[in-house]
Order: sequence, then structure tokens, then C-alpha cells
Amino acid sequence: MNPWKKDFPILFQQVNEHDLVYLDSAATSQKPNSVIEQVAAYYQGYNSNVHRGVHTLGTKATDAYEGARDKVRDFIHAKKREEIIFTRGATTSMNIVARSYAMVHCKAGDEILLSPAEHHANLIPWQQVAKVTGAKLVYMPLESDSTILLEKVRPLITNKTKIVAIQHVSNVLGTINPVAELAKLVHEVGGIITVDGAQSVPHMKVDVQELDVDFLSFSGHKMVGPTGIGVLYGKEHLLNDMEPVEFGGEMIDHVDLETATWKELPWKFEGGTPIIAGAIGLGAAIDYLQAVGMDQVEAHDRKLTAYALNQLQSIEGIRFFGPLENRIGAVTFNLDNIHPHDVATVLDAEGIAVRAGHHCCQPLMRLLGETATARASFYLYNDESDIDQLVKGLQKTKEYFMSIT
Amino acid sequence: MNPWKKDFPILFQQVNEHDLVYLDSAATSQKPNSVIEQVAAYYQGYNSNVHRGVHTLGTKATDAYEGARDKVRDFIHAKKREEIIFTRGATTSMNIVARSYAMVHCKAGDEILLSPAEHHANLIPWQQVAKVTGAKLVYMPLESDSTILLEKVRPLITNKTKIVAIQHVSNVLGTINPVAELAKLVHEVGGIITVDGAQSVPHMKVDVQELDVDFLSFSGHKMVGPTGIGVLYGKEHLLNDMEPVEFGGEMIDHVDLETATWKELPWKFEGGTPIIAGAIGLGAAIDYLQAVGMDQVEAHDRKLTAYALNQLQSIEGIRFFGPLENRIGAVTFNLDNIHPHDVATVLDAEGIAVRAGHHCCQPLMRLLGETATARASFYLYNDESDIDQLVKGLQKTKEYFMSIT
Repeated sequence: MNPWKKDFPILFQQVNEHDLVYLDSAATSQKPNSVIEQVAAYYQGYNSNVHRGVHTLGTKATDAYEGARDKVRDFIHAKKREEIIFTRGATTSMNIVARSYAMVHCKAGDEILLSPAEHHANLIPWQQVAKVTGAKLVYMPLESDSTILLEKVRPLITNKTKIVAIQHVSNVLGTINPVAELAKLVHEVGGIITVDGAQSVPHMKVDVQELDVDFLSFSGHKMVGPTGIGVLYGKEHLLNDMEPVEFGGEMIDHVDLETATWKELPWKFEGGTPIIAGAIGLGAAIDYLQAVGMDQVEAHDRKLTAYALNQLQSIEGIRFFGPLENRIGAVTFNLDNIHPHDVATVLDAEGIAVRAGHHCCQPLMRLLGETATARASFYLYNDESDIDQLVKGLQKTKEYFMSIT
Repeated sequence: MNPWKKDFPILFQQVNEHDLVYLDSAATSQKPNSVIEQVAAYYQGYNSNVHRGVHTLGTKATDAYEGARDKVRDFIHAKKREEIIFTRGATTSMNIVARSYAMVHCKAGDEILLSPAEHHANLIPWQQVAKVTGAKLVYMPLESDSTILLEKVRPLITNKTKIVAIQHVSNVLGTINPVAELAKLVHEVGGIITVDGAQSVPHMKVDVQELDVDFLSFSGHKMVGPTGIGVLYGKEHLLNDMEPVEFGGEMIDHVDLETATWKELPWKFEGGTPIIAGAIGLGAAIDYLQAVGMDQVEAHDRKLTAYALNQLQSIEGIRFFGPLENRIGAVTFNLDNIHPHDVATVLDAEGIAVRAGHHCCQPLMRLLGETATARASFYLYNDESDIDQLVKGLQKTKEYFMSIT
């Protein structure tokens, strides 16, 4: 058995005389006991508001909350802890970059370069920026296998390019985008790059200094952590120049009836009682992933993805999307003319959880020529036997729909 | 013993040969076993992303998440479930009202009426609105006991008044503001009222239809629920006319490369993966409070506040702030010339947790003529013995400081 599965209690649910086959980790990951227990331990042992208290519980909670920030800093190798902002999730993080950075720095004539495969969370905020500032959205071309070719993107990065906004790993296709190379190109013309790391940070070592990205957004719940917590990484000088987007307690320095001044980083961006249990749970998630080793997680997830692509090819009538290599964590497909919701429904009855729909990527769906796809996504607690079950389940699906048509 | 204390495991920590005396519930409340267990049960049994999934876990998680919304609707007696938006907390809720409602509806010459006792979260967003729109902030006068007299506020509500923004219960003083009366007055001139319910919803029955408020904001963590979850209630026609403030998955209808349209309420305001475990935990918190009965919670908390005011008077040199009646949940004071941080530190060594500082109310502190105060705040799990310990602790504090000066 997979050596990590034992840590994830939910995976031992029996469905159809076998363990649940959970292949929906790109939507949200399952949680190990250590994360669940550390969230409970906070509520049972040292629950308190943070920063403001002089009592012992308050000190313990503050130490744990700020300790979680240090864990995040270490995990993505940020230069400073001040560069780590806790948010509600990757979507909030990307909205902060759009609202607080781009709305101020973009003007008519400027260009924002995106991939048409972006998740809505890294697309609609930019549409808003374009609408308000007059900046223009420019889309990179996708190859027939939905990948980006650097040589075709290079001419699009000019001195008009203020921002490159791109996902590190596609939530639909699992393709890995050349973020470091794009960062280099956009920095040469004086622009910045903001990266949606929601699908990369859980699956591979992401080093913000090595990649030299300006902003990186990701969510705890996709990396074995709790829901409702995420991170915005930003280079210190950029965050320092940005205005907060939420105003309240915790983020202020001096307040009178007419004006107020802000605290320094990172608290300037953390108005209100923070997501304390969420941050502590994310810290526990990082401890868990570090103990496994992100190199090992990446190798495992790449191997599983390759195995899935290989095994699924045996099914007649399956159509894959995306390239056949350099991808991680997800396989997207359709089967004959069966609607992917029907595929997912039959698989569910077999105890196999996959996702079907547009995966928050409607423009990409249209490029693929599909209204929806089925997606099986993997994480460290999956193994080959899950994929074998998926293959069996898809064969059953085919048989079922052949029998009724 | 208090009949509810047994449900709160953290309160049985031994400090100085007695149970921890937790008197900081206005900052954050403790959590009963049922809330801690239901959050863990979600992660152990049916953790999944919501809305998008056709698999069984996704359906269970969606039912629980949307079921929590129904519990909130019932708890504050909103007309419709569409009027309940889940947010990160009360601070986020109030910022949404300021940004999405007020920034659009206010213009130069308009007035926004506030109390000078507002929490920074219901003050600084309005300063921002004033700065951007040219609207003017008008402050209600406070009486010598820091209460509001309706007859003095009435003349300030004119046809210039677009918004009244006020806390229902003061987080510093525990005073209860005449929200229903203010709602009536501002509606007569065509304005709206937005209420900070962070300190009222946990302590008393709040009926949004009876009060006829337009917006109400509150936080789960102050009402025995988890951190990182809150609620924005808004009247349907107001929310319908407002633009979302965060853009991403879950909140869209149709997306193409240049434009997007939004889902209907409430999801329009819930971009990204929601705070699923937080909402489920808040639902469990509401179940807990409903089982006790909010009338009983209110009676208990009022009685304790009155008892505290009475008992603390026996301490020579204590200065109280706020009125002597019609208050709930908190008692704020200073002792001789001892800095409140020192008071809190000595009390902490005695196993009594109180808060000291400006309580996110710097303008009120200046009106009180203090830079900071100590605050003891109560909830259903406290009883008279906690206050007796506080009195003893304060006497020790006095003795200690007399001995060293």
C-alpha cells in the first residue's frame, strides 16, 4: 500500500467493497490526521485571539500563528517573513494583486499577458483591471496540445507589458508552465509576473527566489491543509508600496476620527481577526509535506500521472487533452459521446470520485472544443491501484451506456 | 457549576490550582466540543469541494455548507437564504458594504453617520469611502457615560444622510445601541443602516426583520464558532444591485476571454473555494446556541455583567467606563495609575485572562481620556465564581503595585 494513505482517515471509507477512490485532489485535497488534530488541539488547548493579548493563551496563539508564517516562508523559500500574507485562499490572493497592485500601476495602452488556459480566478480580476484602467488583455497562443511555446510568447512581451499573469500548473491539464523563463522575459522589459500556484505548490518544490516571481498565490486546502486559508507571497518592495484592501483591527497603527495609518508588513494586509486555526492547520500541512519531502511528492505525482495517461489509453473512445509529458497531478478526458457528468455519476456509484465540468476554465473548454470534461486528479495518497479502479470504472461506464443506446 | 462550562474543554486547564478564568470572549469565544468535533468530522468523513462536484462526497459537503447557510438565516431570521453571504469575518463583511455599496451610492455632500465608539473595522472603511467619494463623516455625540441619546442623534439624520453605520453592542463598553430606532429614522430620509453585530449576535436574539437593518455583519469565532468565518446579511434588493468584490470560481455564470457574468445570490459574493469547514463549524455553533436558547444566553450575560459591575465597585481606585445598566458582555476599567497591560499581566499570572489595550477603538479611548483600558468580557460558560476570582486578582494586583512603589 501507498505509505502515506494510512494518515488520511477519509480514504478508508468502504464503497462497493473497496476503499473510496478519491481522484479529485485538484479541487481539494484530503487531510492527514496531524492536520485535523492540530486544528482541534488549538481549539481545545490555546484558542485565543492573537497579537492583542497579554495573557498566556494569547501569547501561545500568536506564537503558533506567526510560527505558521515562518513555516510558509521556509516552504517557498521567501527572503523574509514579511513577504507572507495569510488570506482566505488563492482567489483572494490574486484579487489583492489585481486590485491593490494592478489597478494602481496599469493605464490605457499597457498590456497584461495571460494564457487562455487560466483559471477564472486568474482571469476575471484582470478583466476588471482592463475595464477600469484601459489596459489591454493579451493572450498567449496555445499549441494543439494546449501547451505554451516560449518562442511564440517572447514577441508578445514588449515594453507595453506591465504584468504577466499565469498559472504555474494547469488545474485542467496538469501542464507545467515555464514560469522562471517568463519571469526573466518580463523583468527585462520592466514588468512583473504574478503566478497562480494553487496547483503547483502542493505538488512540487516551489522556490520563489529561484523562479524570481513577484507574486505567488496558493491555497491551504489543496495542499493537505484546512479550507479558508491561503497565502499571498509578494516581493517586499512591491507589498510595501501597495495599499491594504481591507480595513479594520490588527492592520492599523494610529487611528483618529478622520484618518488612519497602517501597520508594517505583513499585518497591513491582515485586517480583522486572522484565520488563526486555518494558519495553524496550514503550518501542520507544511510539516507533513516537508516530512515526506517535496521531491518525493513530485516524483510520486508525476509517476502517477504518467501511469494514468498510459493505462487510460487502453480504453477505446477516450479523448485526452493536454500534452503526453511534463505534466503533473491531473488527467482530463472525455469518453465517446457520453457527457462527463454522466461519466462522473457512474464512477461515483462505483466508489470513484472524479470531477466533471468546465473546471473554472470556460475559455479553455472552448479552445478544446468541449463544453465540459472529466478530470481525475492525484496526490501523494493515491497509487496505481486507484488508477486501475478508474480504468475498470470507465470500462463499466462504456458498457452501461452501450447497453442503453 | 455553570451548566455549559462542561462543554468547553479549554476551560479546565489548571492555573494556580484553579480552572483557567477566561474573561476575553469579546476578543474571541471558546468552542464547545460539538463545534470542534463537527469540524473534525467534516475532514474525516466528507471533506470535498462544494457545488462543482457530482460525486457523493461533494454532494455531502455541499449539503452541509448550504445547510449551514439555512441555520444562519434562521438564527437571525432573515427573509431569504440568498441574503446570507459567508465571509472571512465581520471585518470582511463591513468592507464589502463600504466598497460595494457605499463607494457606488455616496457622493460629495452626502453624509455617513457614525458613533465615535465604533470599532476600527466599522470606522476605517468609512474613512476610505469619504476620501474617495467626498462624502462627509458625521459623528454622533456621546454622553458622559459614553451612551447615545436618540434625541441628540435625531437632528443629525437629514436628507443628506445616506448611511448610518453603527455597532449594535460596543466591544469596549458592552452598551447596547438603539439600532431599531436608528433604522426607522434613517429609512424616513431614504438612507440605509449597516450594523456591526460582532458583539450582539453572540449575546442576544438578533432579528434582522424586526430591527429592519439593511446590512448586518458578524463573526463566527465570537459566537462559539471557528475562526476565519463570518456573515454578511444584506437585504436582497440591495445585494442584488451590488457588484461582487472578489472574482474567481464559484461566483460566475458565463466567462469568455474579455467578459464575464455573475451567478445569482448568494454565490455572487463567494468567489473561490468557500470556507467550507468554517461554515459547517458555524452551523454547529448555532445549533449549540439554539439548544441553550438565546434568551437564556442574553439573561445570563446581562446578569453576569451586572454582577461584575457591582462586585468590582468594592475595589478602591477602580474607574469604570460606560453606563451602569443596559449593557452586556463586557466591563472596562482602569485601576489607580497602574497601566492596564500591567494589570492584565498580573492577572494572567493568577490564571485570569483579560484584555488590555485600545480594543481597536482608539478614538473612543481618547474620548475616555485613556490611552488604554483593561476589559473583562463574559459569555455563557462564565459564572459568578470567575468574577470573584477577578476581584481577588485585582486586589492582589493593587497590593503588588503598592508594595513596589
